[in-house]
Amino acid sequence: MSVKIGDFVDIAADGSNYKGRIMPNSSKDVIFLKLESGYNVGINRNSIKSIKLAKEVKKNNIKTKKTAVEQKKGLPKIAILHTGGTLASKVDYETGGVISRFKPEELLDLFPEIREIANIKSVFISNMFSEEMRFENYAKIAKAVLKEINSGVKGIIIGHGTDTMHYTAAALSFMFEHLNVPILIVGAQRSSDRGSSDAAMNLVGAIEFINKTEFHQVAICMHESESDDNCIILPAVKTRKMHTSRRDAFKPINDNAIARVNYKTRTVEILKKIEKEKPKKNVLKIKFEEKVGILKTYPNINANIIKCYKGYKGLIIEGTGMGHMPISQGENKKIFNELKKLVKSGCIVVMTSQCIFGSVNMNVYSPGRNLLDIGIISGEDMLTETAYIKLAWLLGNYKKDIVKELIKKDIRGEIKERILPDEYLSKYDFNKGTD
Amino acid sequence: MSVKIGDFVDIAADGSNYKGRIMPNSSKDVIFLKLESGYNVGINRNSIKSIKLAKEVKKNNIKTKKTAVEQKKGLPKIAILHTGGTLASKVDYETGGVISRFKPEELLDLFPEIREIANIKSVFISNMFSEEMRFENYAKIAKAVLKEINSGVKGIIIGHGTDTMHYTAAALSFMFEHLNVPILIVGAQRSSDRGSSDAAMNLVGAIEFINKTEFHQVAICMHESESDDNCIILPAVKTRKMHTSRRDAFKPINDNAIARVNYKTRTVEILKKIEKEKPKKNVLKIKFEEKVGILKTYPNINANIIKCYKGYKGLIIEGTGMGHMPISQGENKKIFNELKKLVKSGCIVVMTSQCIFGSVNMNVYSPGRNLLDIGIISGEDMLTETAYIKLAWLLGNYKKDIVKELIKKDIRGEIKERILPDEYLSKYDFNKGTD
Repeated sequence: MSVKIGDFVDIAADGSNYKGRIMPNSSKDVIFLKLESGYNVGINRNSIKSIKLAKEVKKNNIKTKKTAVEQKKGLPKIAILHTGGTLASKVDYETGGVISRFKPEELLDLFPEIREIANIKSVFISNMFSEEMRFENYAKIAKAVLKEINSGVKGIIIGHGTDTMHYTAAALSFMFEHLNVPILIVGAQRSSDRGSSDAAMNLVGAIEFINKTEFHQVAICMHESESDDNCIILPAVKTRKMHTSRRDAFKPINDNAIARVNYKTRTVEILKKIEKEKPKKNVLKIKFEEKVGILKTYPNINANIIKCYKGYKGLIIEGTGMGHMPISQGENKKIFNELKKLVKSGCIVVMTSQCIFGSVNMNVYSPGRNLLDIGIISGEDMLTETAYIKLAWLLGNYKKDIVKELIKKDIRGEIKERILPDEYLSKYDFNKGTD
Repeated sequence: MSVKIGDFVDIAADGSNYKGRIMPNSSKDVIFLKLESGYNVGINRNSIKSIKLAKEVKKNNIKTKKTAVEQKKGLPKIAILHTGGTLASKVDYETGGVISRFKPEELLDLFPEIREIANIKSVFISNMFSEEMRFENYAKIAKAVLKEINSGVKGIIIGHGTDTMHYTAAALSFMFEHLNVPILIVGAQRSSDRGSSDAAMNLVGAIEFINKTEFHQVAICMHESESDDNCIILPAVKTRKMHTSRRDAFKPINDNAIARVNYKTRTVEILKKIEKEKPKKNVLKIKFEEKVGILKTYPNINANIIKCYKGYKGLIIEGTGMGHMPISQGENKKIFNELKKLVKSGCIVVMTSQCIFGSVNMNVYSPGRNLLDIGIISGEDMLTETAYIKLAWLLGNYKKDIVKELIKKDIRGEIKERILPDEYLSKYDFNKGTD
């Protein structure tokens, strides 16, 4: 039978049955199906026994009428700022892919339980995939946050794509030099119209945390594990997306989680001391220097790559191990010369590590000391992502001498003097036995 | 009292006592000490109550006489190839830093127990920090390995710096298209003349694994945990240095460990099926294409950075999430144009993820599909480091069309169809409670 793109079909092939929507696909030999689970599968046409049109997946029929937001007495007021991402997206049944196209009100209609625990003000900022975020977007978000804070909310939730959520979390941490309300960044790894979506639970976790604590910093709220039991509240400047697709993709690095929120009991378990002292005034500095970059090093790197950063004001080098890169032997000497030129030109160069966990320590080996000697600064135990955002922010707001001081100093919890043993993958084990 | 660089002193300051060697240091206000633990501490001169000369640390007095290597009957013959790194280094008591300067024979004299379990042939290749490794070094190592294999050894051990050990492991995996002996890459996170060194145990672990199994691939042997109980044998193309300083820095990514070797009982516990079929001949392909690079993306990246890779034959883009980068909005559109030009010019561009764990899937979101449309290739669940080595090796040995096919295909265990739930940080937990 003849089927076309967009048809919902049932295919028998290779002894299996696949039910899903036919997606656009450049190959003539393969049919690409978006399965009901949200995953894609390619099926070789030669292996197909039968294709039949199947029953349509019922499209989500969300009411888009603008409901006047009902204010319930006694409930805290929380603003949800929508920037886009999977939290605010649904499956596009034309192409089978996921697109960003929820309206904020639709999200509240999807999760009515949220209205039971807070008076929500829903604010639309943008509808973008988080990988598209630029510094100008950070500034826009920060200004919108300040506006809501000034209107007297108990806390702010930012719906955000997960790809660069940790970069934005760090940006907000630095932009608000003083902050007297909590800002929780929330995302989802499965779109909100899917049964397996983590969106509702992550939103509820953030709201309960705001309601039940006196936290006034920036944090991330996501699933702690693959199960729908706990949300975990993570430090904005010490967290990283560590998995492409799992709901528990976000993990603290060289640090511990701040709190755990149980979805059933709604209890908030504090895992890390929460600062009680609350600044009186929110101070916002939104400038970022554009000429800042990240360079991950690798064996056999060509010295010309360093030249690309000519004219840059700041550069994070994600080196190897305790903060090294090729500089001493043969061709690598050219790299050292280019680095010297770059630092001499006024660029602030900071070393972090591609190991992710642990701290840079450039004093242990002589090549590290050679890098320090030419003026490269140790990024200590800062994440590359945090160091990048911090350096661009410092250069946007302070003079060079101050930047050089502050980049090495802990100003938002991004540098820790001592990493504890359980702040690593120490629980990772291999007790699986033979296949 | 007056002290000078290189003196071993006992300093009382801030209510603490610090014992160590005074290191060279550019600041007048701070004394920098290399502690006996190997770590450095900076002490503010103003805070110092007293300084006195302390008893010298006894220098390691290693016999350097060339002992004719005694061959014991019944023991397997194993070649240890020395490339440098911490395994082959000791503390330099002049500067307090760690330098590479062991002779291979010295290493065997330091760990006499090794001679009890194998007839060791010690081969010097280089004395370099691993971050200095270039493709020419990979070729040199591979040729030396082949020479030893042809001389009839049961297995090969390569002593290697830890910084880029996983890159070299991947390089050897690809270079040996067929391999009929085990190649174990071994390193240390603490230099061999320190009490806390992991060098001896890692060497013993590798030897016992070679002796007791029929493995014939490339693998890494390092500590499984911080304790001196087990070594873990890790897959060459699926392993990464995940901590700057811990002895259990190396972890498998999207995969399981191959085996565990207990240091006390010397038992080898197989964790993953070992291929029994042994190729008859070792086939070596040592060429690498030089014009290949890695680009880690980040928010606000400038389109000019893509231009730097003009003329490149291959590029690994370490994108965000499931394989994305900024291409759709405002300034980011320029990046998309530059990518199009790069692919059109003939450069093979492969997408991996900075999440580290999980797989790239560029079909889920429309921006991912846009990248596929212009010819960017999904790196599936390959590590960035492995993808880089693989692409440079493929381009060095195959025609472009074949490269495009093979980069997507699993040829050495670098791409897995299904990642198991326990091949993530799922055991990571936050049960620490409040500070």
